[in-house]
Amino acid sequence: MVDEATRKELAVEHCRRVNEGDLDGLLKLYDEAVRFEDPVGSGWRVGHAAFRAHAGAAVAGRVHEDYGEPVASQDGLHAAVPVTATMDYLPNGPFLAQYGVVQPPVDPARARMRVRYVMVVKVGPSGLIEEMRAFWGRSDITVLAPGQD
Amino acid sequence: MVDEATRKELAVEHCRRVNEGDLDGLLKLYDEAVRFEDPVGSGWRVGHAAFRAHAGAAVAGRVHEDYGEPVASQDGLHAAVPVTATMDYLPNGPFLAQYGVVQPPVDPARARMRVRYVMVVKVGPSGLIEEMRAFWGRSDITVLAPGQD
Repeated sequence: MVDEATRKELAVEHCRRVNEGDLDGLLKLYDEAVRFEDPVGSGWRVGHAAFRAHAGAAVAGRVHEDYGEPVASQDGLHAAVPVTATMDYLPNGPFLAQYGVVQPPVDPARARMRVRYVMVVKVGPSGLIEEMRAFWGRSDITVLAPGQD
Repeated sequence: MVDEATRKELAVEHCRRVNEGDLDGLLKLYDEAVRFEDPVGSGWRVGHAAFRAHAGAAVAGRVHEDYGEPVASQDGLHAAVPVTATMDYLPNGPFLAQYGVVQPPVDPARARMRVRYVMVVKVGPSGLIEEMRAFWGRSDITVLAPGQD
């Protein structure tokens, strides 16, 4: 069982490594059999390769994550943190537009997107994240025109 | 399925009715068979009577909840909101102290407590909250001396 401070630190360290574009470092926080759902409702995906592809697209979009105060739980497993992530519309935007999650911008190459979400992580006895869920809906993502962010 | 805006509004309306001490109004947001776990790790409880007792103790402690921006999900079910709740040490504090969650204050009758948490609600097709989880750990609750809040 991992203590509360360590679980909360894992959640924010996740954001820091995303911001540094440190995909290898990010993967080191995750159990190889990690299950994740980002956003909640998109279906569970499993494992390091899937997570690398998922986070890699955000990093390719020069994502920056501002995180709020993390909280823990009393089951010895969870931590949660509110995050505001801002990233280029490309490469992820067209995929989201295809599913009607965002409206395509006039200038895709220069537009940015902002998404507010709550990340809930479940940390195993090994100290690695075994499960990650990101709660955000269509109403929590906005396409920003150039200069708007 | 309840739309995102309605689910987010339910989460913050929950906080507003708590602040008004409106227990009957609060219960109206909840399905009669609601399952809730507050804090996560304390075990699930079920039903209106259990929820009334739980929320009633907070209301008896003159709780005030400041809520942040709620977020939704893309499964048509969830919303999440970060909350900072401040309440009298009594009547809940001694119970928490008994389990080592807080240290008893010098002046229990005048002390307050502050807890930061993330509330995740699951809303059914009826528009009522069917499940509520409040993520907070021992490190997220502080006993405030008189005048500190």
